[in-house]
Amino acid sequence: MQRISKLFQPALIIPKNATVKSHDITSKSQRLMLEQGLIRQAGNGTFYLLPLLQRSLQKAINLIDEHMVKIGAQKLTLPLLTSAELWKKSGRLDSSESGTPTELLQTTDRHGKVQILGPTHEESITSLLAAIAPVTYRQFPLRLYQISTKFRDEMKPRFGLMRAKEFLMKDLYTFDIDRGRCHETYEEVNEAYGRLFSEIGVPFVKVAGDSGTMGGPVSHEYHFPSELGEDQLVQCPRCGIHSNAELFPKLAQRCKNCNGSENFERQAGIEVAHAFILEDRYTKALGATCLQPNGKPASLQMGCYGIGVTRIIAAAIEVLSNDKEIRWPSALAPYRVCIITPKAGSKEESQASSWVVKLYNDLQTVKHCEGEVIVDDRTQLTIGKRLLDARKMGYPIIVVVGSKVIHEEIFEVHNLTTDEELNLSYTDTLSTIGATLSTTANQNQTVIRSPSNKVAQEL
Amino acid sequence: MQRISKLFQPALIIPKNATVKSHDITSKSQRLMLEQGLIRQAGNGTFYLLPLLQRSLQKAINLIDEHMVKIGAQKLTLPLLTSAELWKKSGRLDSSESGTPTELLQTTDRHGKVQILGPTHEESITSLLAAIAPVTYRQFPLRLYQISTKFRDEMKPRFGLMRAKEFLMKDLYTFDIDRGRCHETYEEVNEAYGRLFSEIGVPFVKVAGDSGTMGGPVSHEYHFPSELGEDQLVQCPRCGIHSNAELFPKLAQRCKNCNGSENFERQAGIEVAHAFILEDRYTKALGATCLQPNGKPASLQMGCYGIGVTRIIAAAIEVLSNDKEIRWPSALAPYRVCIITPKAGSKEESQASSWVVKLYNDLQTVKHCEGEVIVDDRTQLTIGKRLLDARKMGYPIIVVVGSKVIHEEIFEVHNLTTDEELNLSYTDTLSTIGATLSTTANQNQTVIRSPSNKVAQEL
Repeated sequence: MQRISKLFQPALIIPKNATVKSHDITSKSQRLMLEQGLIRQAGNGTFYLLPLLQRSLQKAINLIDEHMVKIGAQKLTLPLLTSAELWKKSGRLDSSESGTPTELLQTTDRHGKVQILGPTHEESITSLLAAIAPVTYRQFPLRLYQISTKFRDEMKPRFGLMRAKEFLMKDLYTFDIDRGRCHETYEEVNEAYGRLFSEIGVPFVKVAGDSGTMGGPVSHEYHFPSELGEDQLVQCPRCGIHSNAELFPKLAQRCKNCNGSENFERQAGIEVAHAFILEDRYTKALGATCLQPNGKPASLQMGCYGIGVTRIIAAAIEVLSNDKEIRWPSALAPYRVCIITPKAGSKEESQASSWVVKLYNDLQTVKHCEGEVIVDDRTQLTIGKRLLDARKMGYPIIVVVGSKVIHEEIFEVHNLTTDEELNLSYTDTLSTIGATLSTTANQNQTVIRSPSNKVAQEL
Repeated sequence: MQRISKLFQPALIIPKNATVKSHDITSKSQRLMLEQGLIRQAGNGTFYLLPLLQRSLQKAINLIDEHMVKIGAQKLTLPLLTSAELWKKSGRLDSSESGTPTELLQTTDRHGKVQILGPTHEESITSLLAAIAPVTYRQFPLRLYQISTKFRDEMKPRFGLMRAKEFLMKDLYTFDIDRGRCHETYEEVNEAYGRLFSEIGVPFVKVAGDSGTMGGPVSHEYHFPSELGEDQLVQCPRCGIHSNAELFPKLAQRCKNCNGSENFERQAGIEVAHAFILEDRYTKALGATCLQPNGKPASLQMGCYGIGVTRIIAAAIEVLSNDKEIRWPSALAPYRVCIITPKAGSKEESQASSWVVKLYNDLQTVKHCEGEVIVDDRTQLTIGKRLLDARKMGYPIIVVVGSKVIHEEIFEVHNLTTDEELNLSYTDTLSTIGATLSTTANQNQTVIRSPSNKVAQEL
């Protein structure tokens, strides 16, 4: 049985008069995660990801893996250290005005070789393709991804896991034999992203994005709309086109006949994923070619697709939670069901324990429940105190095994997603939990979508 | 259906006259892994871990997770970057003669703060415990582990994944309220290691080890015996005590009445895991305390336990393979079964395809087979060529669906573990594969064990 009293969950007690905008705590999600023992700060922009959060992370990883496998992507591991020489070849090391982009962390080995602690791995993967070039066209499309730690030397790390120096990121790289197929792959991956984000269930928007330092012709961003978001998103109410405000001049130009840009709708968003068509931006510089059907070598056409894994979790908490209580997308909650037992020394204690064991075991056989149940056995605390705690942690379903169980075989079931409290018989408790979790797993929550990719791509 | 033709498996063709001791290739396992497209070299001591190897790695991770959960260990993530300040506090940053241990990679952030790219995380985890100190004795024993990338600035990286600059390591840290319980924990973790290594199935030895830079009083190492091993292991034939040769003076002293040290038996070993009792070596320096039952704070008693995850895989290949063909421990093979289909244009081709689909699908329902079957559909190659390839990769079971299937419904089953070739009916093929994989999963291969921990600990 998974017991809360055995969990390593060091809660941070933040004084009541501390404001969210204090020096160290710069977002609601960061504060809630600290208060609930999900994270601890290690350094400026680095965090310990504690056992409960580790479970959520693993769930996010599993979900991403599933959706990547469905589009035929293969998982691998690229080294975290990439030779600075490769970054010089691609032109990214000397691309900033001062000579070196300031967000790159570097290390020099004992032989004097400079290595970049990768924020992203275009150079690394392209160099691998170059090493085996030219590859026959039959080997394509090729889709390779990894989920690994990335580094960014933020001037001012903030918002907890949302803008950290070290973060977990999924990066997919696709290679095609010509531009047309590269764009088809782009559509296919974006569709997979749509399905993935629908399954996660946090409302999201897809907007045309700036290609920034990546240097490709087309890009799209996925955002969770939130006041905290650092990006401004703009949508033309007439034609529906949606983009990052960085592209506002292009948008205004395009929509000059759409009844005036002064009516553009704006909202803030937290970027959780980004897709880029890179074409031959990297493959040409590094020599990654394929042998075309006509027998001639040609530069591969590339795309790259990132998802901020730690960021998605923090952003989901930011968007769904209220000031005092965490709310999770059901798919990412550390545990889906929390059972609260009677207080030690109460008259219900001995009689309830067999019910707790039975409920725990029977739930393991309910769909979506196996391994998803935790028992709050801190019996030195009252049921009321533990119920408050469980609500703060946001376990989607909380079952109280209290005096009503002993006297009437009635279980108190709290559904945090619908904010309902139900008094149910044992059988109904099992079936209701099963039905609730199945509904959550299958439903697509309200999704704000931008119009077709085609329109957005025109920007 | 998993198809080999879709795999990203860029084989390196190494000229026949290249010797294993050439500049870049310094071990058999490294050569075989390169030739089979399991790894590619990225830099000096850094590697791409390609999709087939990624599967093996994931299996090793899952196995380790299982055994860690069984002893109540909780998984978390510590940041890869640790403040150099912490290393100064523990005394490890200035412990070498030149001032700084030469194997530590460092990076300096834009604010001038020096960060260590962790080779191990005693400072980091102890600092987390110190931040929440004092913790009540009721919270212990506490066992926290992670599986993450570690860094070591090797002067001369070699043997492929066995001595790389970047590697995947499991590190478990245990905390107890007193020395006695710390030693009990040590026994318990070592027993778990014994079960884990038995399940992996590569012959191993456990020997008394040097505590080296860790600074605790007791340590044990786990080795796969191999000529390539960089450690020399010594055993007294009389009393059976087994240790790393680094401890030879102590061993000789202890066994001076055991009929002379000149009879000591020696063998080389590849270290794959290391366990240390650290007691208060780190907790005292960093202030990680617990509140004892008597209400007084005391330094926590600590242990640390590493397993080289990438190294285990390379070492297993090194030990089990011959010069030309990889052999895997069944638990870590990328796929357990490979099906070879008829050559394109052969008269068997069309009739065989429905058998291949049926076999593939039916195998998914056989125990230990789900997701473990790959079809070699490179039908431009002969069956013979693909059989050679499958043997080189070392898939534990290879099934040829060839002309005998069409004429007699006979399947050719190659069992690489027993080196048998069987001609079986369809039903027998399924049951034989099921039985073979179950046997491999349950059997403990010959395990060379040192005598009881108690004896070894006396060193």
